[in-house]
Amino acid sequence: MNKNPQIGIKPATDGATAARGFVAAGVASGLRYEGRRDLGLLLSEVAGGTSALVVTSNVLKSAPLLVTKGAVEGGDVRALVVNSGIANAATGQRGVEDAYRMQALAADTLGVEPGEVAVASTGVIGEQLPMDQVEAGIKEVAASLSGDGSGFAEAILTTDTRPKEAVATVEIGGETVTVGGVAKGSGMIHPNMATMLAFVTTDAAIEKESLQNVLSKATDRTFNRITVDGDTSPNDMVLLMANGAAENELLTQNSPNLPDFAGTVETVMQELAKEIARDGEGATKLVEVVVEGAESEEKAATLARAVAGSNLFKAAVYGEDANWGRVLNAIGYSGASFDPEAVELYFGPVKVFADGEPVEHDAEEANATLAGDEVVVTARLKEGEASATAWGCDLTEEYVRINGSYRT
Amino acid sequence: MNKNPQIGIKPATDGATAARGFVAAGVASGLRYEGRRDLGLLLSEVAGGTSALVVTSNVLKSAPLLVTKGAVEGGDVRALVVNSGIANAATGQRGVEDAYRMQALAADTLGVEPGEVAVASTGVIGEQLPMDQVEAGIKEVAASLSGDGSGFAEAILTTDTRPKEAVATVEIGGETVTVGGVAKGSGMIHPNMATMLAFVTTDAAIEKESLQNVLSKATDRTFNRITVDGDTSPNDMVLLMANGAAENELLTQNSPNLPDFAGTVETVMQELAKEIARDGEGATKLVEVVVEGAESEEKAATLARAVAGSNLFKAAVYGEDANWGRVLNAIGYSGASFDPEAVELYFGPVKVFADGEPVEHDAEEANATLAGDEVVVTARLKEGEASATAWGCDLTEEYVRINGSYRT
Repeated sequence: MNKNPQIGIKPATDGATAARGFVAAGVASGLRYEGRRDLGLLLSEVAGGTSALVVTSNVLKSAPLLVTKGAVEGGDVRALVVNSGIANAATGQRGVEDAYRMQALAADTLGVEPGEVAVASTGVIGEQLPMDQVEAGIKEVAASLSGDGSGFAEAILTTDTRPKEAVATVEIGGETVTVGGVAKGSGMIHPNMATMLAFVTTDAAIEKESLQNVLSKATDRTFNRITVDGDTSPNDMVLLMANGAAENELLTQNSPNLPDFAGTVETVMQELAKEIARDGEGATKLVEVVVEGAESEEKAATLARAVAGSNLFKAAVYGEDANWGRVLNAIGYSGASFDPEAVELYFGPVKVFADGEPVEHDAEEANATLAGDEVVVTARLKEGEASATAWGCDLTEEYVRINGSYRT
Repeated sequence: MNKNPQIGIKPATDGATAARGFVAAGVASGLRYEGRRDLGLLLSEVAGGTSALVVTSNVLKSAPLLVTKGAVEGGDVRALVVNSGIANAATGQRGVEDAYRMQALAADTLGVEPGEVAVASTGVIGEQLPMDQVEAGIKEVAASLSGDGSGFAEAILTTDTRPKEAVATVEIGGETVTVGGVAKGSGMIHPNMATMLAFVTTDAAIEKESLQNVLSKATDRTFNRITVDGDTSPNDMVLLMANGAAENELLTQNSPNLPDFAGTVETVMQELAKEIARDGEGATKLVEVVVEGAESEEKAATLARAVAGSNLFKAAVYGEDANWGRVLNAIGYSGASFDPEAVELYFGPVKVFADGEPVEHDAEEANATLAGDEVVVTARLKEGEASATAWGCDLTEEYVRINGSYRT
C-alpha cells in the first residue's frame, strides 16, 4: 500500500463524519434489544458528489443490496440509511419492497431523491422488517444528524465488541482531503450471517469512474484480504461517497494526485479491515500473514489468504505454537503453484524453514513471537518482487461456543 | 454410487487382507511411543497384478509419495511398506534417499523387485527417519505376514481413535471378487500434517488403465468429498492393488462388468471416507450433505463440499441448531452459480427453506434431526438430475483444544 508520508492518519473517531459536509446519527428503533442503537443515517449536506460500491460475491444478494446497487449504478448516492438486527435477506418480494420503502422514507425525510439514498441491513435473515418501527426510527434519526459520528458507528454493529472507525488526511494540490470510514465485522445471530459492512466518506472531488477504480482496488487489498471464517454474506457491502467539499481540482484517472488519494482510501480501509479481523468472534490475536517475492500480487494474496484461513494454523496461533508445518501445508494447498525448495518461512523475525527443510532455531523464541496480541508470519518466495498481506485471527474454543451454543 | 444389490458389504475386518492372496502385518518399531504399532507391510503373494494411485493435490509432495508415484507409473506394485510417526516430508535429499532405502529393504526382505514396492509415511514433518529402527522393523514385520489384517490397520494410524476398514464383494462373470481397504484420517502431530492414507486391495483381474480410471473416479466421489478442516497434506495417497487371484475374465474399459466392479470399489472407499469424517478431531457427529437436482455432478459436489466445510455450519451442527441460514450462505459463496429462488433446504426430512424464503416449520423438530451422531442436510435445486454427497463432521471446542494446546 501507499507509504506516502503525506497521508496522515488521525485518531479514529467520527469515521463517518470526519470529511467535511457529512453528518450522521444513530438511534434505537427497537429492532434490537432495549436501548441498543440499530438505525443509522448518514448524509452529505453537499450535493453533486460521486459514489462507488462493491458488493458481496455471494450468489445470494439481500434486498437492500439490490436497491443500493441500482442507486449507485443509476446515479450517485449522497445518503445512506442502515439498520442492524434484521438483515432483510431471504425475505422474498416483500423484502425488496421494504428496502425500497426504507429508501423512500429516508429520501422524503432528508429532502433528497430516493435514488440518492443507499440502503443497508445486517442481522437475522429470513425475517421481515417491522416497517412501522423502521419508519418511526428514520424520522427520529433524521432529526438528530450532526458531526458526531459515534452514534452511527454504534448503530451498524451486531455482535462486534466495539465500533470500528478510521480517518486519514492527504494534501491534494494544496487542499487537505479527508477520508473517514466505519465498519462492522462478523456477527452471528440466528439464523446468522457474518455480514461485513463498510461505509467510507471523503470530501475529495473525484469523478465517478476513478472513484470506483479506487474503491475496487482498495477492497481487493483490504476487505478481500481478511478472513475470520471464510464466509461471505448476502449483505456484504462497501460504499464510498465523495462530496467534493475539499474543493480540490477534480481527480480523474490521469491526475498525478490520484495515487495519493487511492493510498489514503486504502489506509483507512486497511485499518478497518484489521479491526474487523482483530474483533473476529472469540479471537484473541490479530494475525498478519505476509507473502513476499512472488511473481504477482494475485499469487501472493492467494498464498497469504490460504494461511490466514487455515483452521490448523489458526488453532496453532491460539496455542502460541510456531507450527511452520501448518504454514507450509496451507501455501501448498492454496491452489497457487510455487517452488517448495525456494520458500523461506518466518515467525516474526525467526527463520524456521528454508531450502526444503526446517532451519535450526530456538523453538521457545519462535513461540514467543506468538505471545502478543499481534502476530506476523512471513513466507518469502524467490520468484519476483510482488507481495501481499492477509489478516485473520486465531481459532479459539470461544469461537465454537459463540457459534455452536448461542441458543443455550 | 452403484446401488447394485450384487455388491455385498461384509463386516469391516481385515480390510487389507480380505481379498485372496493378500497378507499383511504391523509391528512396533519404536518410531512412536512404546508398544504402538508404527510399521506395516502389505503383500500380494500372487504376482503379475496391476496397481493404481491417486496422490495429494498439495504442491508439496513428501519423499515416499514421489517414490511410490515412480513405481506405479513405471510398472506395478504388489507390496507396500508404510510407517507412522514420521512423515518423511520436508526432509530434503536425505528424505528421498531414505524412502528409496525403505523400498529396497522391503523388496529385499520380500524377495520382490524394488519397483514392486510402494512406500508411504505419515506423522511429524521435518524430521528424518531413524533408518536403523526402520530396517529392523521391516525385517520383523516381514516375518509375521498373515491373513490377519488388524495389525496392519493399526500400524498406519496416528491420532485416529480407531482403525478404519471396509470390505465388499461382487459377482463378476460367475466369480466372486472381493475389494477391501484400510485408511487413516487426519492426525495432528507437531509440526503436523492432516494426512489421509488409504490402501485398497482386490483379487480382481483388471487391466491397469481401467484400474486407474476406477480409482480416480471413486476418489473424486469419496475421499475428495470429505472435509475435516479443509487441509490436504504432502503425504495424502490412495493406492489400489489388484492381483487377479479371483480369476475372473480380465476387466477392461469395455467390460460390461466394469461398472459393478467400480461400484464395489466406490462402496469400500465411501465407507472408509465416512469413517474418516466421523473420526475427525474432536468430532461428535458425521455430517452428510446431499445436493440434488443440479445440472452437473461437479456443481452438486462443489455446493455440498462448501456446506460440509463451513465452520459456521459445523459449529451449528455441534450446537444442534438447524441453522438453514448458514447452509444457504455456504452454497451462496461456494463459487458455483445457481438460482437462489429455486433452492429447497431440508434438515433430515424437515423442509426449512423454499422459493427464496424460510418455510414455516417446527424449529424443535428441525433441531431434533441434529441430535443423533449422523446428520443429513439436503439442498435441492431445480436445474437438472445430477446429485452429489459430501461428508464432514461438526466443529467442537475439542477440535480447538487438540490443535491449539497439544503442547501443554
